[in-house]
Amino acid sequence: MEKNTKRKVTGEKLKVMCLGGLQEIGKNMTVLEYGDDIVVIDCGMGFPDEDMPGIDLVIPDVSYLINNAHKIRGILITHGHEDHIGAVPYILQQIDAPIYGTRLSLGIIEGKLDENPPPNDPELYTVEAGDVVNLGVFKAEFIHVNHSIADACAIAIRTPVGLVYHSGDFKLDVSPIDGKMMDLTRIGELGREGVTLLMCESTNAERPGYTPSERTVGYSLERIFMQYENKRIIIATFSSNIHRVQQIINASAKNNRKVVILGRSMVNVLGAAAELNYIDLPDGVLIDVSEMKRYRPEEITIITTGSQGEPMSALYRIAFSEHNQVRISSGDVVILSSSAIPGNEKLVGRIINALVRNGVKVVHDSSEDLHVSGHACREEIKLLISLLKPKYFMPIHGEYRHLYANKDIAEFMGIPAERIFISELGRVLEVDKKSAKLQGEIPAGNVLVDGAGVGDIGSIVLRDRKHLSEDGLVIIVAGIDGYGELVSGPDVVSRGFVYVKESEELMLRVKEIAAQSIAKSTSKRNIDYAQIKGNIRDDVAKFLFKETKRKPMILPIIMDI
Amino acid sequence: MEKNTKRKVTGEKLKVMCLGGLQEIGKNMTVLEYGDDIVVIDCGMGFPDEDMPGIDLVIPDVSYLINNAHKIRGILITHGHEDHIGAVPYILQQIDAPIYGTRLSLGIIEGKLDENPPPNDPELYTVEAGDVVNLGVFKAEFIHVNHSIADACAIAIRTPVGLVYHSGDFKLDVSPIDGKMMDLTRIGELGREGVTLLMCESTNAERPGYTPSERTVGYSLERIFMQYENKRIIIATFSSNIHRVQQIINASAKNNRKVVILGRSMVNVLGAAAELNYIDLPDGVLIDVSEMKRYRPEEITIITTGSQGEPMSALYRIAFSEHNQVRISSGDVVILSSSAIPGNEKLVGRIINALVRNGVKVVHDSSEDLHVSGHACREEIKLLISLLKPKYFMPIHGEYRHLYANKDIAEFMGIPAERIFISELGRVLEVDKKSAKLQGEIPAGNVLVDGAGVGDIGSIVLRDRKHLSEDGLVIIVAGIDGYGELVSGPDVVSRGFVYVKESEELMLRVKEIAAQSIAKSTSKRNIDYAQIKGNIRDDVAKFLFKETKRKPMILPIIMDI
Repeated sequence: MEKNTKRKVTGEKLKVMCLGGLQEIGKNMTVLEYGDDIVVIDCGMGFPDEDMPGIDLVIPDVSYLINNAHKIRGILITHGHEDHIGAVPYILQQIDAPIYGTRLSLGIIEGKLDENPPPNDPELYTVEAGDVVNLGVFKAEFIHVNHSIADACAIAIRTPVGLVYHSGDFKLDVSPIDGKMMDLTRIGELGREGVTLLMCESTNAERPGYTPSERTVGYSLERIFMQYENKRIIIATFSSNIHRVQQIINASAKNNRKVVILGRSMVNVLGAAAELNYIDLPDGVLIDVSEMKRYRPEEITIITTGSQGEPMSALYRIAFSEHNQVRISSGDVVILSSSAIPGNEKLVGRIINALVRNGVKVVHDSSEDLHVSGHACREEIKLLISLLKPKYFMPIHGEYRHLYANKDIAEFMGIPAERIFISELGRVLEVDKKSAKLQGEIPAGNVLVDGAGVGDIGSIVLRDRKHLSEDGLVIIVAGIDGYGELVSGPDVVSRGFVYVKESEELMLRVKEIAAQSIAKSTSKRNIDYAQIKGNIRDDVAKFLFKETKRKPMILPIIMDI
Repeated sequence: MEKNTKRKVTGEKLKVMCLGGLQEIGKNMTVLEYGDDIVVIDCGMGFPDEDMPGIDLVIPDVSYLINNAHKIRGILITHGHEDHIGAVPYILQQIDAPIYGTRLSLGIIEGKLDENPPPNDPELYTVEAGDVVNLGVFKAEFIHVNHSIADACAIAIRTPVGLVYHSGDFKLDVSPIDGKMMDLTRIGELGREGVTLLMCESTNAERPGYTPSERTVGYSLERIFMQYENKRIIIATFSSNIHRVQQIINASAKNNRKVVILGRSMVNVLGAAAELNYIDLPDGVLIDVSEMKRYRPEEITIITTGSQGEPMSALYRIAFSEHNQVRISSGDVVILSSSAIPGNEKLVGRIINALVRNGVKVVHDSSEDLHVSGHACREEIKLLISLLKPKYFMPIHGEYRHLYANKDIAEFMGIPAERIFISELGRVLEVDKKSAKLQGEIPAGNVLVDGAGVGDIGSIVLRDRKHLSEDGLVIIVAGIDGYGELVSGPDVVSRGFVYVKESEELMLRVKEIAAQSIAKSTSKRNIDYAQIKGNIRDDVAKFLFKETKRKPMILPIIMDI
């Protein structure tokens, strides 16, 4: 009994865990647990890697939360980007928990829940920066930060072992479009009070200096609008970057251009933003795409999705002449107000190639200052560390290269290496008043979503898909009677392997080999289906590799007749 | 008869055609034809796009050359990079033609032909910059240029309609490692003589300024060697960049380090380069990897392949602890002396992540000047145009975005737009003494190589592979007797679709639906196999999409029993 009581002491430690994320740690979901209370920070999704063919999206494995559902006091949302909110509809199918976030974040979440309603009515609570939410032993304070979406917050959580500051995604913008700079004053006050743990995002930890202000893009836009005053302007950007869209609308209004909004997510997000008063639409500036023909090209700006080269986005369809309302010509200039997310460079390149072939001028050069990042560079991270002076530091929100770069920054700022913790999915950081330590693990990982299926795709299915995609498959079907005699077939069917017409002879040889293989396997009057199939597989694979140097999946099917 | 004579007049035009290349035009192969003479410039391969699963490499479709084999006077090689020589072994299987190139280019080609010998003994003729080769009506002069491989040339071809200058891949290096600057003097002389057509590479036409000298990398290396004097240094770079490797060896010798060479292509290319005296190996500097243990880490430099993140490259295996001779630790610094080729960013990132997780310091930042491009930026292209003053200009060697950027440069330099020709694969530029015009087409395109198969993979096979990779497949096998009665099955087999164990019930339903489908189709005593299969496919697809929102390939196989 004493042992049990002793064990309970571990309940007095704060546990900090990261759930979900593919290459990146501490991005999609963070969990804080103390005794009987759990708070969750963010609930995001990831996009599949190229070794996950057919997968639509990836969400955190929340089995730990399901097993501890009674402890969950709430889910706190830092901001409305997909990698921080995208899994909400899926997780609410499995867990009931109140969600706290700022107006815009919840507005976007509501749109998602309308499409995909949870079994129980969701409890959504709107907060503003400065608000404090009580969640069991925890008190969470939302703190205004700048980012590439409006209404973004860091979260400072008072815990029994001290203050934990979760940076969210942030940058310092000293001249933000909405006039609200990151709340350095409040952050400084928290620092004076004393911070036990700083969890700090690492996206740009490899980049020196400061991230430029969103406003610099506005100046570039004005220059570009002057330069191309005789052309129709088509601008692609991230739909969630409402301040960017605001600046494009402002530049258009100033230059007497009407604005057309294209692309489902652009229309949706702007609708929500306008309704919630996050965007200022001057009267009569927005027109429908159908009204465009009433204006000359140089009187039009089109704002569209597709800046990442996404196939089927509005810009993609425009570039490949598949859009039924917008035809491009040499009277157009296309501006990519974005940078390619790693992995998307080739897709973006394809759209640029298609546009220039149609005589369109494309402005995408990074030297044109048409995009700024939403994430803190090295000097901004140093500023945050300087204000908060945390006892412990955990780099989050980044691939390992970014986390380690962030660790270097923290060490440069004087935090001893042994107080810096780079975690892994499911690793537990235990913090008490005297110490902190990475200790133990909880079940964690990623769940793959494919169509309606959540979690039914695992490594075997992915391995098969990859195999099938590389060399295709060859199916061999044969009917065998009770004496092991071949009574039908073998028939050979292939897909994704070689042109059937060009390989008739090859397929005839496969038939012969399969027939020999069956005869050999059943001659002992001992019908072992597994062995027959194994022999066919081996013999045909060997033959086909010799002939073609390829290794298709070989699928023998024996019918019992 | 007169008509025929008239037709022959078209033979008096020079035809210029680009063969091969995926997104890029005029990179892998260029063809010049006049009357009964053809010369081919370069014979390169491409790497498959992500929408070509399982394809190993891509070579030009040379059916036009096969049909005109008697006209081919020679293949001229500008330099020894894969995209300019990689298709030689495949093309020599189909065509006999003498090959002319500099010593290093032919040295690399010989290695390839040893592995993959052509049916007839290849005729390889070594040339030096300055040499002129007579090829029917053509006279080809090789001109020394700088590039990221030694012994690179441009080719000036005297034709009956005037001089054609093919830039090859080039940059201007005013302080090259081998002391030989691009031959501006000779280029200037050609310009004075008069150039009809300049075919100019476009890779860096979007980049302003000049490409830095290879020598700048040497200075960065010296700085890095000082900074990490207490660590083992592992440097990954392109094996063909012999001058880069030379600089790494020099820096190592100067700092009393021994050098280990890792990776098959690094070993091969350096072997050829050393044999042909393109590289200077100080005595005793190179050691075998097995001797490494006799030295302290800070006495070692490892030069390796894998700078593009290639799975199974030496660096990849080192990073993922799969290399049986090199173990990494926090005593190592890994230097990526390269930049990621678009599309490889994620692969490179994966290696960096694996290395930093093992405590290795990775230096890869572009701000460190550890890599320079081998291609001319805008000012260098202007310099070339300025010296050659061509009448006609054709941007080559680039995606459309680069070709159009190069066109802009040419227009800036005063070449009228109507004298600038952006071609396409197989498009024919006809040039006579008075005019030039894009006119007509020849068969051209790309041939996919998969294993031993050259050209047996077409769009249907690729489409099937893609389909299989996205949602897998479901096979339904049934045996039917002469009356259309189901006598065996239906059996259901799936791969890459869902976990079979988790979907037993789903598969049972598929069986039922397939059986109903067969019963329905054969009830008329009219056995139409195509119709039975079509019905099964439709019914099962509909059911599975409803249940799973997925669209696996559905493959009904009916056996006649």
